[in-house]
Amino acid sequence: MLRIDTARLVQSLMDLGRMGALPGKGVHRLALTDADKAGRDWTLAQMRELGMQVRIDGIGNVVATYAGREDLPAVMTGSHIDTVRTGGLYDGNLGVLAGLEVVRTLSENGVRPRRPIAVAFFTNEEGARFQPDMLGSLVYVGGMPLETALEARDADGARLGDELARIGYAGEHAPAAPRPDSFFELHIEQGPVLHRQGVQIGVVEGVQGICWLRLTFEGKSNHAGTTPMALRRDAGMSAMRTAAFAHELAARLGGRQLATVGSLRLQPDLVNVIAAQASMTVDLRNTDAAMLARARTELLAHAQACAEQHGVAMRVETLADFDPVAFDTALVDGIERHARALGLSTLRLPSGAGHDAQMLARICPSAMIFVPSLDGLSHNVDEYTPAEDIGYGAQILLRAMLERAER
Amino acid sequence: MLRIDTARLVQSLMDLGRMGALPGKGVHRLALTDADKAGRDWTLAQMRELGMQVRIDGIGNVVATYAGREDLPAVMTGSHIDTVRTGGLYDGNLGVLAGLEVVRTLSENGVRPRRPIAVAFFTNEEGARFQPDMLGSLVYVGGMPLETALEARDADGARLGDELARIGYAGEHAPAAPRPDSFFELHIEQGPVLHRQGVQIGVVEGVQGICWLRLTFEGKSNHAGTTPMALRRDAGMSAMRTAAFAHELAARLGGRQLATVGSLRLQPDLVNVIAAQASMTVDLRNTDAAMLARARTELLAHAQACAEQHGVAMRVETLADFDPVAFDTALVDGIERHARALGLSTLRLPSGAGHDAQMLARICPSAMIFVPSLDGLSHNVDEYTPAEDIGYGAQILLRAMLERAER
Repeated sequence: MLRIDTARLVQSLMDLGRMGALPGKGVHRLALTDADKAGRDWTLAQMRELGMQVRIDGIGNVVATYAGREDLPAVMTGSHIDTVRTGGLYDGNLGVLAGLEVVRTLSENGVRPRRPIAVAFFTNEEGARFQPDMLGSLVYVGGMPLETALEARDADGARLGDELARIGYAGEHAPAAPRPDSFFELHIEQGPVLHRQGVQIGVVEGVQGICWLRLTFEGKSNHAGTTPMALRRDAGMSAMRTAAFAHELAARLGGRQLATVGSLRLQPDLVNVIAAQASMTVDLRNTDAAMLARARTELLAHAQACAEQHGVAMRVETLADFDPVAFDTALVDGIERHARALGLSTLRLPSGAGHDAQMLARICPSAMIFVPSLDGLSHNVDEYTPAEDIGYGAQILLRAMLERAER
Repeated sequence: MLRIDTARLVQSLMDLGRMGALPGKGVHRLALTDADKAGRDWTLAQMRELGMQVRIDGIGNVVATYAGREDLPAVMTGSHIDTVRTGGLYDGNLGVLAGLEVVRTLSENGVRPRRPIAVAFFTNEEGARFQPDMLGSLVYVGGMPLETALEARDADGARLGDELARIGYAGEHAPAAPRPDSFFELHIEQGPVLHRQGVQIGVVEGVQGICWLRLTFEGKSNHAGTTPMALRRDAGMSAMRTAAFAHELAARLGGRQLATVGSLRLQPDLVNVIAAQASMTVDLRNTDAAMLARARTELLAHAQACAEQHGVAMRVETLADFDPVAFDTALVDGIERHARALGLSTLRLPSGAGHDAQMLARICPSAMIFVPSLDGLSHNVDEYTPAEDIGYGAQILLRAMLERAER
């Protein structure tokens, strides 16, 4: 039986982690920076060393192919190598390097499956430098025109297209490359569920739908001591009551409904002044599209009622709105079967975060494998997954891809 | 009958308003700045011009006395001339300048009452530069040792005592000057009640008790998409639920209970990250000491319960804690009687803001007269009270002081 070399895979995570390394630990490798170029160059060298054919497309996605016995659509895996400002070694990188380890294992054992095996890394998955996140894979599947994507600007006004050219990754290939046969993505969970429950492999059934709202309440600033409660137009109170409602709503709807108010700002933000303005975000997620829509509707109705009661104006912006994605049943079942065959404990769960696989699911059967994140930490220099779990994840990736490629 | 010259009083408000004037309108005359010195010098010149005897005490309070027929404790009035950073022309200034207009009216008409008439302005009432607010009058009544007060520092580290000496107002007199016979303070309401109800004179029965709390919740930052509701330690949600409770509490306790959450800050304050830390203030006020204490107790109990439910630590700081002050019944009744004798509409109400009169109430019978604030605006360059209302307020001040001084 083919076996992944876990130590070698872990070493490659450490090696790639030297590109953009922060002092002490962690990585700062924002998309299309010099550090990202260094990471890309290093990864590309690995691909070439494995004799893979490399294609770089117009948005800088890199797809390397290990030829099959027949010229059929490839069984693809991959993820991203860009990180957030204070990121860890695993998020994204694991998916790319595990793919290369799969190819290395096949190559060393002289295995050439019927279909080609492709390993990709997609541009700007994190969205930490350019918006939206998952931009490279979105363009790859035809969800955004290349021209639009190249015009994205970072916070300092730098244009994505210029930065891409600057680091030498504005490729010639059309992003909508040949449609893959299928797509697998190995990723750390980035949440605490597997670690808390002591489960080794997460069988990802899909990605939650996401609705991000920004609510801005405009009231009137007044003296906290001299303005009777009934004469107030307290923008802050409308926001804070809406936030409390969001929490009650998640509890009431139950199931997989999540609600987070991560940002709330008051103006003028003084102890004895009634807030004239309050701006808050609400992050709603659910694997069930109908429930997510209901949560949004109920939340906005409550916010509007609070605003009216307080004599406050309310403005709503939708910052993100993604329907839930269901992964391919056959691929998901296959991952579970391979994990069990290896004697590993499994848990079916949705992904709470967005991943390139949800974009690929638009054009081919797709699925994801999760390995545990210690304490659920991610987007954090302390991000950690034990070598053993990394090896299990990569081994399942190898089996699932090979089975699919031989089909 | 003696009559205030309203036009002259309004002109003096405009004149003093030129010291530290902001471009366009409004005043920036923080305590012990050069602008404050200019305002003090101008006011002192007025006092001297009226032939009043001026005493400056060790904390920079200025008391000017118009001699009576007998050497008895003075009937005192006054307020402050420091302002907030973007203040108006009326807050504080009106009380000082109306006092001088009272003396001017007496002097022009050759009236010398039995008891002396004193007009004071107290240092750093606003608390916008040095804490606590009402510092000068607090020292005046012996509520804080002079030495402690002189050590107060502003946000840039400047020492109050040094700043006082720098502008030449570190006087030689002991702050606990001869105990006045009584104290009156004319002030704008700084709230909307009189203006909304079309009432001309507010008969102030006392000052609300104030309790300022800062609650700091410490939870754990986590991914909003991957952390199940039950595994969260959401510091923000503890704060926002506590804020919503504060509002319900004020409604439930009713009466004069006020509750304001004017400041709330989340860390890291990002849309998709559960807040690790939340810091909020709660401003509770009531004229009833027992009810205020109950509000505080209930609020803290709820906050603690929220924190425990969310697995979050809570820290409580008391930023201010003042019992309600009741003004002297005879003085309050007298103000109401004089207003009615002039055919003016009156309303008995508590002061929502703190005033020097509440400090003077510790050492002598005290009371306040309120005139309407347009739209309740205060601490605002648009602060405005019509000349007519200013004249009524000063006229009542004259009558009430004269009656008291002749007694």
